[in-house]
Amino acid sequence: MLHGLDQRTTFIYAPVQKGLALVEDKLRSLAETETSPVQPLLQYVTDAGGKRVRPAVTLLAAQFHPHDESRPVIMASAVELLHLATLIHDDTVDNSAMRRGRATVSNTWSPHVAVLFGDYVFATSATFVCDTRNIRVIRRFSETIMELASGQLMEYFTAFDAVQARDLYNDRIYRKTASLFCTASESGAVLGEAPEREVQALRDYGYNIGMAFQVGDDLLDFQGDASDLGKPVGSDLLNGVLTLPTIMLLERYPHDNLVQALFQDPTNEVKLQKVVDVINDSTILPDCEQVVLDYCDKAMLALQTLPDCDAKRSLLELADYVIDRRR
Amino acid sequence: MLHGLDQRTTFIYAPVQKGLALVEDKLRSLAETETSPVQPLLQYVTDAGGKRVRPAVTLLAAQFHPHDESRPVIMASAVELLHLATLIHDDTVDNSAMRRGRATVSNTWSPHVAVLFGDYVFATSATFVCDTRNIRVIRRFSETIMELASGQLMEYFTAFDAVQARDLYNDRIYRKTASLFCTASESGAVLGEAPEREVQALRDYGYNIGMAFQVGDDLLDFQGDASDLGKPVGSDLLNGVLTLPTIMLLERYPHDNLVQALFQDPTNEVKLQKVVDVINDSTILPDCEQVVLDYCDKAMLALQTLPDCDAKRSLLELADYVIDRRR
Repeated sequence: MLHGLDQRTTFIYAPVQKGLALVEDKLRSLAETETSPVQPLLQYVTDAGGKRVRPAVTLLAAQFHPHDESRPVIMASAVELLHLATLIHDDTVDNSAMRRGRATVSNTWSPHVAVLFGDYVFATSATFVCDTRNIRVIRRFSETIMELASGQLMEYFTAFDAVQARDLYNDRIYRKTASLFCTASESGAVLGEAPEREVQALRDYGYNIGMAFQVGDDLLDFQGDASDLGKPVGSDLLNGVLTLPTIMLLERYPHDNLVQALFQDPTNEVKLQKVVDVINDSTILPDCEQVVLDYCDKAMLALQTLPDCDAKRSLLELADYVIDRRR
Repeated sequence: MLHGLDQRTTFIYAPVQKGLALVEDKLRSLAETETSPVQPLLQYVTDAGGKRVRPAVTLLAAQFHPHDESRPVIMASAVELLHLATLIHDDTVDNSAMRRGRATVSNTWSPHVAVLFGDYVFATSATFVCDTRNIRVIRRFSETIMELASGQLMEYFTAFDAVQARDLYNDRIYRKTASLFCTASESGAVLGEAPEREVQALRDYGYNIGMAFQVGDDLLDFQGDASDLGKPVGSDLLNGVLTLPTIMLLERYPHDNLVQALFQDPTNEVKLQKVVDVINDSTILPDCEQVVLDYCDKAMLALQTLPDCDAKRSLLELADYVIDRRR
């Protein structure tokens, strides 16, 4: 079930439409064939839909050369399942009540169930990857789970620390988001039997698209109004999490750390508004937009030497789409 | 660091002493080489020690034929890490404050950190297994994580259900405990290049030893006094968890369900004591002991056709030790 697709994403997904339908079948059959008490939980999370961007990237990255088509489909299903597993645990540790307009697993069942069921989905995704029978891809997948967890832990351990360098932020969002995009494109390329040079190019693409996604997401927290987002402006800051706009603020005003003042008194709305205002009155937000564009440009550049095909056009269009949805 | 070893376990571990030392090195070096905020957590859990029964079983199961010795060591380390990961999550969902005389990760840091760090340790164990480069073993390992998680979920979903059949209990404790023992012995045998018939025999051994361990553990809840155990007699029952003694009680008195009466009023100490007394006044506890002995006998029988060697003597002695520590 693909949610929130517009005409443009339908065009982007066109070369892998059949593969994505098989991914949906694989996810659906997980719940259909299960008989244990886990069944309603599997049903609940695989029914929730989503844009399936990560599996689409895996399938597109596999399309450059003739290959056994079943293997990228298995991998794409694993990538989406891993994404779903991380959402289950993230919502649990963040005490989130809602996700994509529905109650979270933690909220519907309990945090207890959500922890164990998240483990179950992580492990299920890992068994899927084993069916690719490719050790490189299997190992990379486990490393990705380590990176996802350590990225979340870094966010937690650095919360309310008002002195953070940009390279730490970059490392943190790589782990949290770009790592899985890298693995999505790299594994697609490996299972699509691309030569090593192209595998690295597609991995680069995944890295840059992933970074663009996360910086773009972090920016949303300072844009629009609360009603658009379903959460208040500055909610990352309220949770003590520095993102690119606040890190740029620290870089520009190292001797007048407004963020530190806020973190010493984190429920003070006047201090929060002050940070948001100074960011909005500076060139920080357009400069952050430029960072997103730069990542998208690098993603497109990475594909330059790859053979021309529908999948390449789709991947370029996806990068362009990430840029355009910001205008 | 091996804790709680007596003369007899030292004898059992003798043929794999070198391998177990390498496992300790691998676990220790995990924390030593880590530089991220995960480092103190890794240090904390790998320092905690333990009997290392599961890795010993892996190493012993590998000793029947000439083989590349590094691979069972990697596998044994992965098996122990997986065990540590499950303890981190189990303690978190059970709100346990202490484990092996030390504060749990959840208690020392927070449940939030424990969920994410548990994920990290699960994933680390999976990357270790990848280094065996054996797909059969890698896949079996992921399935084991699914079984461990679903076993815990089954325990949760059946809590306070006073009508449970013995086959459901057996399935639940297989998933919760015996699954990892199976995987420990099976993977050791596979990586020790045993022929398939011996792999199946060693897997059988692991299954039966694992079941014996868990039934034995469940029995402890009805034996000794609170001061021995560090938890009150009947604490599984207080948590709504049926184990073999209570299931035998239901089998013997289907029309006078004392457990149901307790579950309808679960804090009633008189009703709890009544269940404990009826169990103690019947032949249930000796009958449960017999179940443990039967599993140990089956474990020994499974090894009957295997070549005679020090490792075989150790595995037999381990089964015998499980019997003897019950006398």
